[in-house]
Amino acid sequence: MSELLIPRLAIIGVGSIGTSLALALKKAQVVGEVVGCGRSQDNLEVAQQRGAIDRYTLDASEAVQGADVVFLAVPMGSMGAILKQIAPALSETSIVTDGGSSKTSIIQEAEQALRHFNRFVPGHPIAGTERSGAEAGISDLYQDRRVLLTPTPSTDSSATEWVTKMWQAAGATVETMSAEHHDQVLAATSHLPHMLAFGLVDSLARMDDVDEIFRYAAGGFRDFTRIASSDPVMWRDICLNNRDALLDAMQRYVKDVRDIYKAVDEADGDTLLEIFQRAKTTRDKFCN
Amino acid sequence: MSELLIPRLAIIGVGSIGTSLALALKKAQVVGEVVGCGRSQDNLEVAQQRGAIDRYTLDASEAVQGADVVFLAVPMGSMGAILKQIAPALSETSIVTDGGSSKTSIIQEAEQALRHFNRFVPGHPIAGTERSGAEAGISDLYQDRRVLLTPTPSTDSSATEWVTKMWQAAGATVETMSAEHHDQVLAATSHLPHMLAFGLVDSLARMDDVDEIFRYAAGGFRDFTRIASSDPVMWRDICLNNRDALLDAMQRYVKDVRDIYKAVDEADGDTLLEIFQRAKTTRDKFCN
Repeated sequence: MSELLIPRLAIIGVGSIGTSLALALKKAQVVGEVVGCGRSQDNLEVAQQRGAIDRYTLDASEAVQGADVVFLAVPMGSMGAILKQIAPALSETSIVTDGGSSKTSIIQEAEQALRHFNRFVPGHPIAGTERSGAEAGISDLYQDRRVLLTPTPSTDSSATEWVTKMWQAAGATVETMSAEHHDQVLAATSHLPHMLAFGLVDSLARMDDVDEIFRYAAGGFRDFTRIASSDPVMWRDICLNNRDALLDAMQRYVKDVRDIYKAVDEADGDTLLEIFQRAKTTRDKFCN
Repeated sequence: MSELLIPRLAIIGVGSIGTSLALALKKAQVVGEVVGCGRSQDNLEVAQQRGAIDRYTLDASEAVQGADVVFLAVPMGSMGAILKQIAPALSETSIVTDGGSSKTSIIQEAEQALRHFNRFVPGHPIAGTERSGAEAGISDLYQDRRVLLTPTPSTDSSATEWVTKMWQAAGATVETMSAEHHDQVLAATSHLPHMLAFGLVDSLARMDDVDEIFRYAAGGFRDFTRIASSDPVMWRDICLNNRDALLDAMQRYVKDVRDIYKAVDEADGDTLLEIFQRAKTTRDKFCN
């Protein structure tokens, strides 16, 4: 008789991230009962019909009762309130983990809210989709993707190990790093590009001839701006929760774009060629 | 007995743009002999083996002799030199057209170089690929894509009509606009995004932990930076040939990014949400 890795799992927020994890763990047969919690009953119904969750409640403190693992998959801006809400209902053996895109801010919030802060394992799966809701969840979203865990010095190593096993069962590769380093790396590779794509589309959206502008946009433009179709609330929250690292990355970037501007302005073809070649070489090396 | 639209076509530059046009016109059976010209004999051999061109020469002035239509598909930086080189060999009935990404600069070069400037029809197919060379040419590259022609007040309307028919035979939709307007629109939708993608990848490439940074980059980053794998020489030339419009677009963009920076800095969630929502709505409307 095999023992289940997670007899009872609570998923707070059944969007694509939460639903995908539940579907993956169900498929891997490492989870017993999955309790879902969210604000939209319609969405919770979808999650249940899809077999991601076994039952649901609109009350987060009810959802976490008796849960071995609690996975928080709500927008960053709601994490603090949810942590406060579930804190009294958590047992001292419950492990709490999350899927938020920035880590230093949620660690602060968890430290304030939780009696057993040492059972909180901050995490971030590097996966996602522009689509939202339980409908967008897929069981192989995390297959061969990376999950970054950012335990603090006071985090129980056994809790970190448990969460590591959970993500591995979902098909992911798990790595650990400091929250500060995580936030810097993600600011550069994810948060900054989202700002640039949102910024470009918004910039064009406010031009007089917006219809025409988009009519002549080619495939490269579509690729470049795909991430501007991401969820605005989620991204507002990420910005507000990773401000320092994002501001650093934006500052560095604007300076670099000014160098390109200067080279174009001065018709300095050698500098432009050097920048473009270095960029192409780097991207071809890492992304192909 | 049907008369061919173009009994003899000269393609100067048999990269993906030139090769694709030749393949499309051959497939549509509207072209007789296609003469290719380029600097690399190996590449010309590939174009010939693929059936895009019937014969080739390394001498552009030889290539255009007796040609009804001459299509220039070399990087923008080589257009001026090629125009000067072919000018003496062109017959007064030859139509010259091009596929360059910026239009005001080549019009100036053509006006200086060509005796029969009224037979020059500036053009730009909004299509392409990050891949280069005759090997990358495909017969349906222009299918259902737009081609913008930017005739000047002195351009023969019959020449414009001929070039329109040529692109339509290749499957494209043809529209005309002024060269200035073209350059502004393309600066916004193509040239600016390329600068931003090259700039981002180069910015990250120069960081200490570049390997790690790219290791944690997700799918959105790959999409966003795909255009940074484009040909550096081609893009240097585009920058130098569409300087004014590109500088305008970059200036406007940096200002808009500064507004986002300010909103992040001031933790102004309402402004961020407004920008992100407008961007998402616009992109979803035009790109889906």
